[in-house]
Amino acid sequence: MPALSDLWTERAEAADHADRLRPLRALFHLPEGMTYLDGNSLGCLTYGARARLRDVVDREWGTGLIASWNQAGWVDLPARVGARIARLVGAEEGALVACDSTSVNLFKVLASALALRPGRRVIVSERSNFPTDLYMAEGLANLLNQGHELRLADHADDIPALVTDETAVLMLTQVNYRTGALHDMASLSRLAHERGALALWDLAHSAGALPVDLAGDGADFAIGCGYKYLNGGPGAPAFLYVAPCHQAAARQPLSGWFGHAAPFAFETGYQPASGVTRFLTGTPSVLALSALDAALDAFDGVDMAALREKSVALTRFFIAAVEALCAGHGLQLVTPREPARRGSQVSFTHPAAYALCQALIEEGVVGDFRAPDILRFGFAPLYNSFADALNAATTIAELLASKRYEDERFQRRNTVT
Amino acid sequence: MPALSDLWTERAEAADHADRLRPLRALFHLPEGMTYLDGNSLGCLTYGARARLRDVVDREWGTGLIASWNQAGWVDLPARVGARIARLVGAEEGALVACDSTSVNLFKVLASALALRPGRRVIVSERSNFPTDLYMAEGLANLLNQGHELRLADHADDIPALVTDETAVLMLTQVNYRTGALHDMASLSRLAHERGALALWDLAHSAGALPVDLAGDGADFAIGCGYKYLNGGPGAPAFLYVAPCHQAAARQPLSGWFGHAAPFAFETGYQPASGVTRFLTGTPSVLALSALDAALDAFDGVDMAALREKSVALTRFFIAAVEALCAGHGLQLVTPREPARRGSQVSFTHPAAYALCQALIEEGVVGDFRAPDILRFGFAPLYNSFADALNAATTIAELLASKRYEDERFQRRNTVT
Repeated sequence: MPALSDLWTERAEAADHADRLRPLRALFHLPEGMTYLDGNSLGCLTYGARARLRDVVDREWGTGLIASWNQAGWVDLPARVGARIARLVGAEEGALVACDSTSVNLFKVLASALALRPGRRVIVSERSNFPTDLYMAEGLANLLNQGHELRLADHADDIPALVTDETAVLMLTQVNYRTGALHDMASLSRLAHERGALALWDLAHSAGALPVDLAGDGADFAIGCGYKYLNGGPGAPAFLYVAPCHQAAARQPLSGWFGHAAPFAFETGYQPASGVTRFLTGTPSVLALSALDAALDAFDGVDMAALREKSVALTRFFIAAVEALCAGHGLQLVTPREPARRGSQVSFTHPAAYALCQALIEEGVVGDFRAPDILRFGFAPLYNSFADALNAATTIAELLASKRYEDERFQRRNTVT
Repeated sequence: MPALSDLWTERAEAADHADRLRPLRALFHLPEGMTYLDGNSLGCLTYGARARLRDVVDREWGTGLIASWNQAGWVDLPARVGARIARLVGAEEGALVACDSTSVNLFKVLASALALRPGRRVIVSERSNFPTDLYMAEGLANLLNQGHELRLADHADDIPALVTDETAVLMLTQVNYRTGALHDMASLSRLAHERGALALWDLAHSAGALPVDLAGDGADFAIGCGYKYLNGGPGAPAFLYVAPCHQAAARQPLSGWFGHAAPFAFETGYQPASGVTRFLTGTPSVLALSALDAALDAFDGVDMAALREKSVALTRFFIAAVEALCAGHGLQLVTPREPARRGSQVSFTHPAAYALCQALIEEGVVGDFRAPDILRFGFAPLYNSFADALNAATTIAELLASKRYEDERFQRRNTVT
């Protein structure tokens, strides 16, 4: 009878062999000796993005200089990159632009949404939403000083009861950053609409990780992150979506020149551009947008249903492997076991989660820790393999069995974890 | 008797020979055959920024991945880059950060300033201020919906009469983007304070072009651009300054996680960081900030008084050369003739300014056009030479004499000019 680990190795090899997305892994620079399961914090570098950045720096900036705004098409980058992301998240043509940070974009769309529901003062969200979304809503409410209030659901099941005829906006992140739980965008958007509210979705942990259908699922506004599953590089530009039905009426407060109808006419008064372009603000970073643009090449021709299929298979395999190999060591799955209810990450709680995370990193298995006790592993279906998943599971098992994670050096806290 | 052009050539050579900043030109990639006088639109690439970007992409992102937030110091980049800009603009320690775009930063500091003057509803600025500053103020006033009003001076001389006990903020750009006229920051800030208002300065065309003394001149808030004289690359991160006396009281509305007291504690409620750090919002672009950081190396050890001396000499030389070589061809100087009243650019009006600008570009002399009739030439004292100034002047003279700029192909308008 073969050993347990041999069985798992065979399974991983068979799954990798059958993986039709496997060739895409070669597009990425994956550091030698590292099993990287943190693409939901920072996606890996593609060779294409590296080459593109060299060209943008050397030729477009270095030699083309100011002429590159026209000749290299810099001026259209927010719309052009936005159009490529639109396909991945089911946005209509001309409904999505890449710009600014997720936080800044949230401010823009939330302010627009509130203005479309002037008689209502409540923003409903979840206490477990990613904090910056709640901070931005709080900052906007304070600035408006009109009695807007944030009502937070303690559990996803409590959301429906909170959405009432006082609710202006239901603001949710589709995939929870800690647990990986996936909301049903269609039913929650419908719920918001039934009660006269608007639905605003943060796609930070879903864009590029699974098929999103903003148009079909009735999202009114959305934002998302460029540096996670889209692999745009550290602090990459974010994106924002405005449903076509709101574009003419929507006014956003960060009304800078790039959102003006004629930015280079240098007029004194602000006239919003037509469509989603009015949601642009200042001069965008060409370096950052170009890296994101090139990174999106990896999605060219990728069927998002096939991507999801691989993602589900990877997370299912990982959960099964961890539970088989680490049984009895105190890991508790907090990610929904039902595939349809999770994104592309798997999280476990463990009392020593922080130290375990550090010890794993020393072994070359990079996941991350989320306070107070979560070990989080992101599976980027473009480049992660079943061998990655198995390697992580066996390393966790080995650390738990040996208790090496209890070493003092794994307890020290870093600034960013 | 030598020809007029020989005399000018001798003068340019002598001035370049005497220029103590001349070695700095070698730090920049200056395209062959191009005389670049548009560093006030987009600064040139330094070899250092090019090398740094390769390292950030290949090593920090490509190999270090998520660990680089700590190990490569990404998390401190906004403050670290800010501290380097602080020296160039006379800001106190811990009073300046690099982040977001100039437009977004203006929104943050203007909202903070208005909140510090709750009983006042007027923002005073100039009609000739750079449009995005006016657009952002308009967007903020509309969002606040509390009757804030923008009062615009038609001429700089009209500003004092507009600043009254209703004025919350005097918001000015230190160097005018069209004419190059330089405001007296000290006296205008004093004027604002005498009338109980706050002084907000946009340093887009002054940071890195001349010595600025934010602390000494009594600025309350300031913003500035990273991609002009600071050479940070297309769409580089901007910066913002908050005088130390306002930092504890100032609240900015774009309260994202990077401005939180403990961003990685993932708390639900927003607690502002101490000091100017609370003015950060979302995750900053590491690529863009790194390029700006490296570009600032060119200023290391540069005495800003010496930089100003060279800038004044360059613009004086250029004005004299153009007026001598192009006399009678309709160019009118709109930049103040008195050096103390101008920044580091020289602008002329001409009825055919657009076509002339295009014809100059074809000859390799890159300045820019500002509607309706301005030809604008920026002099970046770190890399521009007196030979550059003379070459531009002789090329303008040649085009005016030959009237080659009247060719049809120079009339076609581009998107960005």
